Amino acid sequence: MTKDFSSKKINSYLKEKKRLIDQGLDKYVPKASAYPQAIHKAMRYSLFSGGKRLRPILTIAAGGIGNGKRPALLPAACAIELIHTFSLIHDDLPSLDDDDFRRGKPSCHRAFGEDIAILAGDALLVLGFGLLGESERMGRGFLKPGILIREMAGAIGTCGMIGGQVVDLESQKKKIGARGLKYINEKKTAALITGALRIGGIIGQVPPRELTALTNFGKAMGVSFQIVDDMLDQKKDNRKKSMSKVKQNRPLADSLSPLSINSSIIKELTLKAESFLKPLGERGEVLKAINKAMVCRVK
Amino acid sequence: MTKDFSSKKINSYLKEKKRLIDQGLDKYVPKASAYPQAIHKAMRYSLFSGGKRLRPILTIAAGGIGNGKRPALLPAACAIELIHTFSLIHDDLPSLDDDDFRRGKPSCHRAFGEDIAILAGDALLVLGFGLLGESERMGRGFLKPGILIREMAGAIGTCGMIGGQVVDLESQKKKIGARGLKYINEKKTAALITGALRIGGIIGQVPPRELTALTNFGKAMGVSFQIVDDMLDQKKDNRKKSMSKVKQNRPLADSLSPLSINSSIIKELTLKAESFLKPLGERGEVLKAINKAMVCRVK
Repeated sequence: MTKDFSSKKINSYLKEKKRLIDQGLDKYVPKASAYPQAIHKAMRYSLFSGGKRLRPILTIAAGGIGNGKRPALLPAACAIELIHTFSLIHDDLPSLDDDDFRRGKPSCHRAFGEDIAILAGDALLVLGFGLLGESERMGRGFLKPGILIREMAGAIGTCGMIGGQVVDLESQKKKIGARGLKYINEKKTAALITGALRIGGIIGQVPPRELTALTNFGKAMGVSFQIVDDMLDQKKDNRKKSMSKVKQNRPLADSLSPLSINSSIIKELTLKAESFLKPLGERGEVLKAINKAMVCRVK
Repeated sequence: MTKDFSSKKINSYLKEKKRLIDQGLDKYVPKASAYPQAIHKAMRYSLFSGGKRLRPILTIAAGGIGNGKRPALLPAACAIELIHTFSLIHDDLPSLDDDDFRRGKPSCHRAFGEDIAILAGDALLVLGFGLLGESERMGRGFLKPGILIREMAGAIGTCGMIGGQVVDLESQKKKIGARGLKYINEKKTAALITGALRIGGIIGQVPPRELTALTNFGKAMGVSFQIVDDMLDQKKDNRKKSMSKVKQNRPLADSLSPLSINSSIIKELTLKAESFLKPLGERGEVLKAINKAMVCRVK
């Protein structure tokens, strides 16, 4: 990694890693023709629907801070994308966010029915953990047993992502303050992003000080990523159409995204996230560039 | 273990292990007062609703075939019960079996809403895997990294329990033959029972020959357990009331449980399952007794 990580270079980095991850996912997920077909079709439909692969790219990038050549890195990165996709499918369900569309296509339950969508989400979660188990097998000797599994379970459990989803659901029924909003951003979005970075760092065997840097960067990046997402939602002309039905009915929707597009706030958040990368020196440049590329979406 | 495993003795064994597992579950699952409370309440509601703890007891019993004093055994057993409970909550959902009651109490979604029930199922699955990761930590040195996780993911994934659920759902919409019925019984029910036994055996470090015996016993026991369940369903006077709404509407419900109560079939299935325990000698008596106790439900 050189210090100069131009926008052209980061785009080609993101493209290359996305290709690698897509290949891995195709290998690790049963073919659509495998029995019982309905669920494998649904899993693949949601998995290959145009995701940016941000989280698994972060895992690979964080692995590169240390020893990025570990064979355990790709299955772990793919596991994270499987688990991210599980969360999107369940989030879209009628009793949760009730979203008919995801990335411009009918959401999983609209395409395959609610029953198969629930089970497809479950199956992606199970497969994700299974793949982390596979990753631990490959990391034999240098990984503490169960460490990746416990990292992931912590990141997405009731004190992580799922906890954030619960509070987000509650916010649709009652007023939540700035503290509640902070909790949602930190848990619903930042917890898995932080987990993705930490898992990469652990596999790359970075020292504790650098793992702390990755953790702090993940939290800051995750929160700003969510805020940018909220701004983009607000920016869309056809907001009502693009928003989930539940969010439309939210009496206090605006209290959940109190920021209108504000480039000074974005700049502040970007700089804050970057500041945590200092201990990594030049090796942190790739993460800085990924962070910028994600924030640039709003400009 | 002695050869003579009387009915009194097995009842006290089951009671003692259930107590141990309940204590473990209470310790490993966040308190109902922990934030966000809604999900922890829902998880505990379904978890402590009077389950027999059959699967985790099998894990402990299978561990006892080898070195049953391993500290990794209890967290693994509890993980299996968490994952079993996840499957029940999701199975009961309106778009799946649409069951308003479970063990005589309102099912999770009836008590807490569909949104929280879906997330509570997800969270139990995540916590179960996290606890298996904890178990692997405790088994450091004698467990192959990731082995418990991969066993579990295989048992409950699309080639195991979830696959069985998918085919069961499909059977409600179209005719399935004896092969489809066999698939459902083997996957939806027997896969997790087999996984529970294998995970216990692996932690107890039983030799490969004995692990094969546990696997074959698990498959046979799991299938007979499901058949007995179906017979019990048929036996109930208030069948319509006790059956899920979806199953009531099943055009081919009877093709799914083609056996009326038939004690000679039950005897045959019990003997078949027992036959696989021969390589374990006297150490297999406890599993034989558990199998009999479960089958006795129908008499």
